[in-house]
Amino acid sequence: MRVLILGATGGLGSALARSLKGHELFLAARSQGALWALAEEVGGKPLPVQLEDELEVQALMEEVDGVDLLLHAVGRAGRAPVRELGRDLLEGMLLSHLLTAALVLKHVRFRPGARAVFFGAYPAYVRVPGFAAYAAAKAALEAYLETARKELRREGVHLVVVRLPAVATGLWAPLGGPPKGALAPMEAAKRVLEGVLREPPPETLEL
Amino acid sequence: MRVLILGATGGLGSALARSLKGHELFLAARSQGALWALAEEVGGKPLPVQLEDELEVQALMEEVDGVDLLLHAVGRAGRAPVRELGRDLLEGMLLSHLLTAALVLKHVRFRPGARAVFFGAYPAYVRVPGFAAYAAAKAALEAYLETARKELRREGVHLVVVRLPAVATGLWAPLGGPPKGALAPMEAAKRVLEGVLREPPPETLEL
Repeated sequence: MRVLILGATGGLGSALARSLKGHELFLAARSQGALWALAEEVGGKPLPVQLEDELEVQALMEEVDGVDLLLHAVGRAGRAPVRELGRDLLEGMLLSHLLTAALVLKHVRFRPGARAVFFGAYPAYVRVPGFAAYAAAKAALEAYLETARKELRREGVHLVVVRLPAVATGLWAPLGGPPKGALAPMEAAKRVLEGVLREPPPETLEL
Repeated sequence: MRVLILGATGGLGSALARSLKGHELFLAARSQGALWALAEEVGGKPLPVQLEDELEVQALMEEVDGVDLLLHAVGRAGRAPVRELGRDLLEGMLLSHLLTAALVLKHVRFRPGARAVFFGAYPAYVRVPGFAAYAAAKAALEAYLETARKELRREGVHLVVVRLPAVATGLWAPLGGPPKGALAPMEAAKRVLEGVLREPPPETLEL
């Protein structure tokens, strides 16, 4: 399989990369030492990219060309009550979760029967005080994908929305660390890949 | 009742203003002749404002001070397939539907027992090819409000999300006009007000 992992240096992205060792791997992430170290470890190609920049995304997709599996492991977390919420937090959430996904879906080149995997969220877990911006970004992403799925079906592409319980990654660092009982990243990656590679591919995968 | 209508010169906003004649009305909208004409017609106070600008929203809320009923009739529509979608369209949708609502909720001053009304969307109606950006913005708004409701409850405020069928307003102009069977704005306004003023106030009102 030709696999593109976006956000490859994140906690979930790097666990996905390690679980897919042996496949033809393209690892996209912000330029940093961890990207080169990971690429060497798993035998993938490091592709430094700023995913909020459309021209960079377009260039990335030209370089990678067709993919069988796309994994969008991009996002950030943040907390603020709505009575104090800064515009930067709200816009940052939307850029990171939704805009990157939209740019990727616009420019990615799929091989026949490809799967594109994105990470949504259980509404009941995220629509809790302090998380309005995060909840809005995840809901926007899921709605965008549900609509996109209907358009991309004619290209023979399968969009998969994965809802995970909390995973113990750096996403939680701004919030003081992951909640108790958070899944280990390698365990989460294993469950994600088992689920999304099923035949027929699921539309929503709740883990 | 002391009522603030945001987007007062829009098709739905102006119908709401006309239906609320006799109350103490504050009419906020982009500065244009229609705002002054409407204010004179319904006996309200015209408040020109750019709702995507936080300082203007803050100043507006200081001027209006406490409200019993807030109506957020703000939004725009647009269509593009995800393979061609421009960043401007996506960002415009999110600014108009979500950011304006977030800024309003941050700065509005509520009187005890106040109701704040926003317009969501039936997922099945909007998650259709060409409407990914619109669907994402409405889903983001609803998720934001569902979270905000839990925070604002302690202020004694009731957030109401209204889902309307299509209403025959200028929102549809960029799409070639409203769909067949769209509700007349005055009829939509009547149903909205009957619904949101019920005791106890509904959380979601599907019309």
